Amino acid sequence: MDAKVRIGDLAWPEYARRIKEEAQTILIPIGALEQHGPHMSMNPDVLLPTAISEEVARRIGAMVAPAIAYGYKSQQKSGGGNHLCGTTSLDGHTLSMTVKDVLKEFARHGARKICLVNGHFENSMFAVEGVDLAIRELRWEGIHDFQVVMLSYWDFVTEETIARIYPEGFPGWAVEHGGVLETSLMLLLHPHLVDMTCVPRHAAATFPPYDVFPPIPEWTPASGCLSSAAAASGEKGALLYEVCVEGIAQALGEAFEVRRKSAQ
Amino acid sequence: MDAKVRIGDLAWPEYARRIKEEAQTILIPIGALEQHGPHMSMNPDVLLPTAISEEVARRIGAMVAPAIAYGYKSQQKSGGGNHLCGTTSLDGHTLSMTVKDVLKEFARHGARKICLVNGHFENSMFAVEGVDLAIRELRWEGIHDFQVVMLSYWDFVTEETIARIYPEGFPGWAVEHGGVLETSLMLLLHPHLVDMTCVPRHAAATFPPYDVFPPIPEWTPASGCLSSAAAASGEKGALLYEVCVEGIAQALGEAFEVRRKSAQ
Amino acid sequence: MDAKVRIGDLAWPEYARRIKEEAQTILIPIGALEQHGPHMSMNPDVLLPTAISEEVARRIGAMVAPAIAYGYKSQQKSGGGNHLCGTTSLDGHTLSMTVKDVLKEFARHGARKICLVNGHFENSMFAVEGVDLAIRELRWEGIHDFQVVMLSYWDFVTEETIARIYPEGFPGWAVEHGGVLETSLMLLLHPHLVDMTCVPRHAAATFPPYDVFPPIPEWTPASGCLSSAAAASGEKGALLYEVCVEGIAQALGEAFEVRRKSAQ
Amino acid sequence: MDAKVRIGDLAWPEYARRIKEEAQTILIPIGALEQHGPHMSMNPDVLLPTAISEEVARRIGAMVAPAIAYGYKSQQKSGGGNHLCGTTSLDGHTLSMTVKDVLKEFARHGARKICLVNGHFENSMFAVEGVDLAIRELRWEGIHDFQVVMLSYWDFVTEETIARIYPEGFPGWAVEHGGVLETSLMLLLHPHLVDMTCVPRHAAATFPPYDVFPPIPEWTPASGCLSSAAAASGEKGALLYEVCVEGIAQALGEAFEVRRKSAQ
Amino acid sequence: MDAKVRIGDLAWPEYARRIKEEAQTILIPIGALEQHGPHMSMNPDVLLPTAISEEVARRIGAMVAPAIAYGYKSQQKSGGGNHLCGTTSLDGHTLSMTVKDVLKEFARHGARKICLVNGHFENSMFAVEGVDLAIRELRWEGIHDFQVVMLSYWDFVTEETIARIYPEGFPGWAVEHGGVLETSLMLLLHPHLVDMTCVPRHAAATFPPYDVFPPIPEWTPASGCLSSAAAASGEKGALLYEVCVEGIAQALGEAFEVRRKSAQ
Amino acid sequence: MDAKVRIGDLAWPEYARRIKEEAQTILIPIGALEQHGPHMSMNPDVLLPTAISEEVARRIGAMVAPAIAYGYKSQQKSGGGNHLCGTTSLDGHTLSMTVKDVLKEFARHGARKICLVNGHFENSMFAVEGVDLAIRELRWEGIHDFQVVMLSYWDFVTEETIARIYPEGFPGWAVEHGGVLETSLMLLLHPHLVDMTCVPRHAAATFPPYDVFPPIPEWTPASGCLSSAAAASGEKGALLYEVCVEGIAQALGEAFEVRRKSAQ
Repeated sequence: MDAKVRIGDLAWPEYARRIKEEAQTILIPIGALEQHGPHMSMNPDVLLPTAISEEVARRIGAMVAPAIAYGYKSQQKSGGGNHLCGTTSLDGHTLSMTVKDVLKEFARHGARKICLVNGHFENSMFAVEGVDLAIRELRWEGIHDFQVVMLSYWDFVTEETIARIYPEGFPGWAVEHGGVLETSLMLLLHPHLVDMTCVPRHAAATFPPYDVFPPIPEWTPASGCLSSAAAASGEKGALLYEVCVEGIAQALGEAFEVRRKSAQ
Repeated sequence: MDAKVRIGDLAWPEYARRIKEEAQTILIPIGALEQHGPHMSMNPDVLLPTAISEEVARRIGAMVAPAIAYGYKSQQKSGGGNHLCGTTSLDGHTLSMTVKDVLKEFARHGARKICLVNGHFENSMFAVEGVDLAIRELRWEGIHDFQVVMLSYWDFVTEETIARIYPEGFPGWAVEHGGVLETSLMLLLHPHLVDMTCVPRHAAATFPPYDVFPPIPEWTPASGCLSSAAAASGEKGALLYEVCVEGIAQALGEAFEVRRKSAQ
Repeated sequence: MDAKVRIGDLAWPEYARRIKEEAQTILIPIGALEQHGPHMSMNPDVLLPTAISEEVARRIGAMVAPAIAYGYKSQQKSGGGNHLCGTTSLDGHTLSMTVKDVLKEFARHGARKICLVNGHFENSMFAVEGVDLAIRELRWEGIHDFQVVMLSYWDFVTEETIARIYPEGFPGWAVEHGGVLETSLMLLLHPHLVDMTCVPRHAAATFPPYDVFPPIPEWTPASGCLSSAAAASGEKGALLYEVCVEGIAQALGEAFEVRRKSAQ
Repeated sequence: MDAKVRIGDLAWPEYARRIKEEAQTILIPIGALEQHGPHMSMNPDVLLPTAISEEVARRIGAMVAPAIAYGYKSQQKSGGGNHLCGTTSLDGHTLSMTVKDVLKEFARHGARKICLVNGHFENSMFAVEGVDLAIRELRWEGIHDFQVVMLSYWDFVTEETIARIYPEGFPGWAVEHGGVLETSLMLLLHPHLVDMTCVPRHAAATFPPYDVFPPIPEWTPASGCLSSAAAASGEKGALLYEVCVEGIAQALGEAFEVRRKSAQ
Repeated sequence: MDAKVRIGDLAWPEYARRIKEEAQTILIPIGALEQHGPHMSMNPDVLLPTAISEEVARRIGAMVAPAIAYGYKSQQKSGGGNHLCGTTSLDGHTLSMTVKDVLKEFARHGARKICLVNGHFENSMFAVEGVDLAIRELRWEGIHDFQVVMLSYWDFVTEETIARIYPEGFPGWAVEHGGVLETSLMLLLHPHLVDMTCVPRHAAATFPPYDVFPPIPEWTPASGCLSSAAAASGEKGALLYEVCVEGIAQALGEAFEVRRKSAQ
Repeated sequence: MDAKVRIGDLAWPEYARRIKEEAQTILIPIGALEQHGPHMSMNPDVLLPTAISEEVARRIGAMVAPAIAYGYKSQQKSGGGNHLCGTTSLDGHTLSMTVKDVLKEFARHGARKICLVNGHFENSMFAVEGVDLAIRELRWEGIHDFQVVMLSYWDFVTEETIARIYPEGFPGWAVEHGGVLETSLMLLLHPHLVDMTCVPRHAAATFPPYDVFPPIPEWTPASGCLSSAAAASGEKGALLYEVCVEGIAQALGEAFEVRRKSAQ
């Protein structure tokens, strides 16, 4: 058996075999090209779910599709805003259609278990819509057993891990853009894309309980980060990575099993 | 001056005068037709933001547009799921287009300050997309000073109020579907649409950190509620109503002022 | 049994029961936010079909869905034109998609008999398209017995009633915008939204047998009305209301019966 | 100067000259492929507006664009219904997009005066939407003087002509599908496409004041015609042709002049 | 039997008979309105595939649908570019939707064998997409035996014919826009639409191996032709016409037969 | 200065500097996930234009955007067909929208020179449409100097190189799917993704001058390749790589310079 997990790296007969004989799950990383502060590259939202997906795939015997590399528009309170230079986003409908089209193709090949592994907060609802539209159209094709798990990797960080990563208090995922979580994981997985000498050292951004459009530039820290990654480290990255990979690996077994029983 | 706040109730000359002479803000309630458990009607997501919008409008001298009465698909972990009977939803793109079209029309009339008052969690991102598309197209029309505030009313419930409403601990907005918040507000505002004898008395639903599509029916309590509204009361409703109305009223003055300064 | 007819006012178990046990028809009012002259509010196109639908529902044991409150663009020769202040319209495709989505959801619940009750002339063809697209997609879902009646309430005003309402001659529905029909019905149903002291008193508008785009503002009377409502009265409203309600109530029984036989 | 009026028959330098030097109006016939009864071909909705457009163009010095040959779905009460064999229609959005795209291209060439000459009742609103969208996008291009006249040729048949054509009473345009009007014009212009020996001789169809979807086949006469063309003749065709051509020719001068003044 | 081949010229009973009893193939010409140099009209892309389709239909007993008269945007290296005056094009999606809608309608009538006869190079991929979408949706309708042949008529010009038509060397189809092929066929079929005294006499255009957008006007010869039609003649047109007609006639028999066997 | 060329690998301040101070060109690889025979992975259409883009960028001082990793549907005569397992494609409109959205974002950042480097034949026209729509909308934003070069890398293989790569005769790019060109480049750049022991050794596929939909499976060789890559080698890959990289590098300088002059 071929040890590769990336679908793109497989020749089609091996891919077809894994779908047909092993009914392997396909993980699709979905990310963004988005500024993440002056200390880090603009691709963590795609690199992190890709790395996590590949490790999950190795552990459970699954495959990883090419990442959807452009995502939905950055929102000011979770990513600084889509007015920033470097952030490169799709209209919501474009993203939903992309997710829909890709899911339907995997279903045509015979795949029935898919997991969308999201790395960019703002993608969620448009990806969900793509999933819903794909399932609808597949029903029209006569396919009724197609199952999709949708998740964002940070939702698998346990309370216990949060306590260890943020000993001085967790600011909330909302302002974790370009912060300790993403920076630590990048330090672990792609250290050459992080320059800790450039880490901004400002307080976490605070926002009112509403959004304003067009965004008010002054609301976003000039760094583009919503909190400081000064406390990031590769060790924290390793902790986060393991909890996410292991959590997702377990979740997938569980989710598809639950569905199977529910459908009986 | 006419004391009415509903745009639909005004004759056009009065509406035009308020836009042109008073530069009034327009609030647009955006809701859903969605099951909310066996003890409550299916329209709280539209009735509550409408009532709140009207009271805010009375306090600050604004107008309220007809509500967008159908919303985005209910998600299992926040509304029970879109497989449930009674829940009646739009595709995401339809909702975004509706928001876009309506915003552009108000801009054509001369309105420059709009507030979308959301009453259905799942609407948020598709409404945001509609706002973004409207602002883009208005720019193409040569309109550069159009401002939109987007909010969900429950985000104005303060920590202090939460402590009073949920003395035994706050389960989180996520499972508040058909729960104490919405039921208390309905008891205050539309008591004939609530039947407390039918309130389900189960524990709050718990979900894993991922979503599954199609939804797994067993995950949603049979009542359709994600937590019990047994502790709801009109008094709590009054508390919630006041904190939301007052919070939004203050936010609007603040938001449009901040923008004005930012644009200078 | 619950005497309520508005779907939004029902808890889901009662709604589900009526669909499943009684196979009740669902009426969907479809209107607009549109200027209707200086003497009347901008919501008659939604209030009138809503009131008529509710009374029809009470008579025949049906339910009324939340109205579609924004409609297609006002045309100069039937509504004054979409350049007017206050008139707030959707693109045609947005309206068709809204109708399609809502119809499909009711079909998902099990409803098979729907009536669209139109109150805004310009909606008709885009609503028809929404109906056609819904039926097409429902066919793809394997649903072949879904039936929709589409009507505009004024088409149920009989020749005899017209003779009584317009003793000095009927100007035609085309110029009835903000005229005797709508004003009389509003005087009956929502008198506080009419101010007869502001009724314009000009001759009915006349138009050439073609349309021009963009509209020529001078073609529309400055009042926004296409004819004068000076002869409107609540008594006429009562006459019109009864003939419409009774006509539609009879039509629905007849239409769904004819279809049933045709399908046999 | 070249006597041709069809744009397609011109080489581009002559077309460009007429646009730039003569500011000629462009007429665009818009029709359908639709059954018109057993006695007539399926193309009168495109042939008739094309012939009328070409004669108008000869009289006023204008050009005629290639016809839009497929139209919106036939409705039961005006064309027999779209379930009939032979009738070949577009979705509404497709038709609107086609009209929009074509109008924008003529505007790019420099044309500022366009007339859509409709030959298929059901096209009207979707063509109107295409016109509205084109004008909107042209505004975004900085083009503010683009003018479109939209008409259906039969609206130029005067009361006097109706009296002569239908001496035994006018059944209304609604049931004129495949009837005396269209058949007489075809007998004049394309006699080889009519076979009067096959004319159906049934009474005019009657319909209730509502529509049912899917259509009820029994409502449409088996011939596909909504009234009998037995009284059609080439002489009547000549009368109709002249009144339409002359009426449209006058209308165009008038319409574009009115707009010019309105814009001053 | 009726000798007509144009669907539009048939009354519906004859059309229905040919579909149902003879299972006739339908050919759909798909063209463009596009400048073709100073010596030729702007409609060869629609007239040529129409003429060829009609002759093919006469030989094999098929029918010809009304042409799709507007096509996709002219590209600089194959048609001079879409910035040129006279060229009148659709957005890609509009063209795909048109093809989809029309194909689905013919399928609804019972047709199962369609041939798209393309006359405008740039149409190909958008027509292909329309075909793919139609087949997909027809599958959802339960129709699995619908077959479409897609071709461009010039691909049937054999090497031998090329040698005879271009004795001094074949410049390639790429620069044949307004050149010998199209002009010769027009001289044969529509000589009054060609004026050989205006034929440009410049060398064939040459282009780099990439495209630039917006187009660089200087790249396109001022004539709008990409090569000279000076060597065109009606005799060459006759040669080309016969090889295309005969090639397509044979191809259709072959293609539908191959499919039939493949499906067994 | 930072030596990185991948936009995703840059922090936003460096990206912004390159755009604003150096006006760097952005290259966007556009590929596909598509079966390429039993001897090769399914990602050459994205890996090859990515590698070529990065080397071009290093030579001319440009940046490379994340690849668009899913492309348009494989066509039988150029890629084997979209019915094959592993081939994973987008609808045409989805691809056009993706290209449009991404281009507009780079323009928002200030980029004015973009090159789409295509690696999948079938993408071309839908990418072209995306480019056209982006330029149109940017014009509406007031941006008139945005320039896009669109190319497919194999079009830069010179006649001379072809003669060296295919000493026994060039079969044409049409059947080069999974053949010598792609395999040689993969052997050079990603040798671990090629297994020459599995290379199919059949004759090049031959096709009639038309397409059939749905595809006829028998037309595509069972390997999925349209010709044999048996003669592929890393040396040939090096030759091809250099001629493409150098050709594109020169073309970009030339193209943007020509445009600059044309615009003066």
